[in-house]
Amino acid sequence: MMHPSDIADSGEVIAIDWGTSSLRAALMAPDGAVRERIASPDGIMFANGRRFEDIFRALFGEWIARHPGATILASGMIGSRQGWVEAPYAACPAGFEDLARGLVFAEVEGLAKVGFVPGLSIEHDDGVPDVMRGEETQVFGALASLGVSEGVFVLPGTHSKWVRVEGGRIIGFRTFMTGEMFDLLRRHSILGRLMPEGAPKGGEPGEAFDLGCELSGSGTLLHHLFSVRSRGLLGKTAPEQLADYMSGLIIGEEVREARTFFTEAPSPVYLVGRGDLASLYRRALAHYDLQSAALDDGVTFAGLFALARTHRAQMKV
Amino acid sequence: MMHPSDIADSGEVIAIDWGTSSLRAALMAPDGAVRERIASPDGIMFANGRRFEDIFRALFGEWIARHPGATILASGMIGSRQGWVEAPYAACPAGFEDLARGLVFAEVEGLAKVGFVPGLSIEHDDGVPDVMRGEETQVFGALASLGVSEGVFVLPGTHSKWVRVEGGRIIGFRTFMTGEMFDLLRRHSILGRLMPEGAPKGGEPGEAFDLGCELSGSGTLLHHLFSVRSRGLLGKTAPEQLADYMSGLIIGEEVREARTFFTEAPSPVYLVGRGDLASLYRRALAHYDLQSAALDDGVTFAGLFALARTHRAQMKV
Repeated sequence: MMHPSDIADSGEVIAIDWGTSSLRAALMAPDGAVRERIASPDGIMFANGRRFEDIFRALFGEWIARHPGATILASGMIGSRQGWVEAPYAACPAGFEDLARGLVFAEVEGLAKVGFVPGLSIEHDDGVPDVMRGEETQVFGALASLGVSEGVFVLPGTHSKWVRVEGGRIIGFRTFMTGEMFDLLRRHSILGRLMPEGAPKGGEPGEAFDLGCELSGSGTLLHHLFSVRSRGLLGKTAPEQLADYMSGLIIGEEVREARTFFTEAPSPVYLVGRGDLASLYRRALAHYDLQSAALDDGVTFAGLFALARTHRAQMKV
Repeated sequence: MMHPSDIADSGEVIAIDWGTSSLRAALMAPDGAVRERIASPDGIMFANGRRFEDIFRALFGEWIARHPGATILASGMIGSRQGWVEAPYAACPAGFEDLARGLVFAEVEGLAKVGFVPGLSIEHDDGVPDVMRGEETQVFGALASLGVSEGVFVLPGTHSKWVRVEGGRIIGFRTFMTGEMFDLLRRHSILGRLMPEGAPKGGEPGEAFDLGCELSGSGTLLHHLFSVRSRGLLGKTAPEQLADYMSGLIIGEEVREARTFFTEAPSPVYLVGRGDLASLYRRALAHYDLQSAALDDGVTFAGLFALARTHRAQMKV
């Protein structure tokens, strides 16, 4: 694993985190510092018939004109079959060098070459496959930022990932559909109807969240979720607390199960993500006696930067 | 428990199963035989501003004119707070007589009196409340039809119920959001997008369903569900099999958990419901070594009939 400071002599890096619903990018100096940022709603599901190449030209033409020698890398769903250029999944265990070797480059005519980061695939012990795309870059970025080469990384979100790293390589991971499940139930189920519209969260999670975590200790969501309704109907939980309670049930079940796959892992667990979600996870992790340390999601840019350097080093060999 | 044949000397019964999305009714002879049937899409969520009383008059005026002395009972969501007249939940354990005593009657002016069947509520050992409304009538109908006074009854559906009966009383039950969960995931999640539109089921469940059941043996749906996506993406399960696989995962998890609450129960488990759903459940129950016997959902009318007789007997005392 190379640390950004070891390789600060190369050129600029344009790091693009191009996901399903949005895009974030950074123009990074040769020493890894972020000089400029772009945030755009042009996620791959919102291209609406526009070519990804045209979106790219419009967003990045100016940076590239200023820094024609920059290394340009994109991670996330843009490298999937539904994206711009498919970068096939690399198999776990996979280290930084494997990921760099799996980069797939495409020429944007007359402008630049763009490298797409591969996702990772794994087959669990029970023969079931699992995949990630985008989170691998965050994890390697976290390793580079922290200067560590092992640990458990939790990346909450639509499809929450738990990732085990040993010797600088991702040796295992598990996906949980936690965020999507919450969203489906909130927006489309009979449970959502009992919850006030758009109640802003704000502040720390409360007692209702803890109650949900507590109940998640055994049994199954399929049963526990119905208690959101029965508590609401019988007046045992106030309507504005029901979403918090449901969140505790779902995140609690994720943590309960996930920790059984990572029992040998060192403490603390590293939590990568947005502030409000991270604070819910910290609370659920604590409920299950797991210590955690929070990292912000700037680690994606750090990951892309380190990957660009590793790629350059591989090219020189 | 009275058997219909003990009390065949009273008048006709109009039995109404009035649920969320539809309504079914039977005009029953004094001996319990179904003479005529009505099926209508006028479930309580489709009233669209019409008064329930007006729907009732339009559907049942003619039957009542012919049989002015008939006892009229309605079970299901029509007796909920969102329905016509609320019949408060009776607490478990509850027997047939408790249910009959909990009937709430309303006068439809100049036409008839209608009795609404109460739902049941329970507090589980972990302090969590649970409720049912409509299924209690099916279970008591099944008891009357089978001439038994104990057993475990499984009522698959949007909110699947497992009900334990001892000495003719419902002593416990658990709800699982199985049907709604399947529907949410099929219609609104990223998993549904991989499944062909409106693939007709038809025939027996296949290997993909069994594979889902197998995987449900440990762990959590939150994780297993993502394998619907990874199997689809990696070509390990064909698109037209993915819904069956997902169904096996969800129903399997229900059965895995539910049976732990009913370990002392006699065999077979009684399965009440539609043919195609019943065949999925029979397969999942067999996977978990539970013997089952299937009952059709005509048991609702048998339950309302027996309840009408019990009510008349209570009135005479």
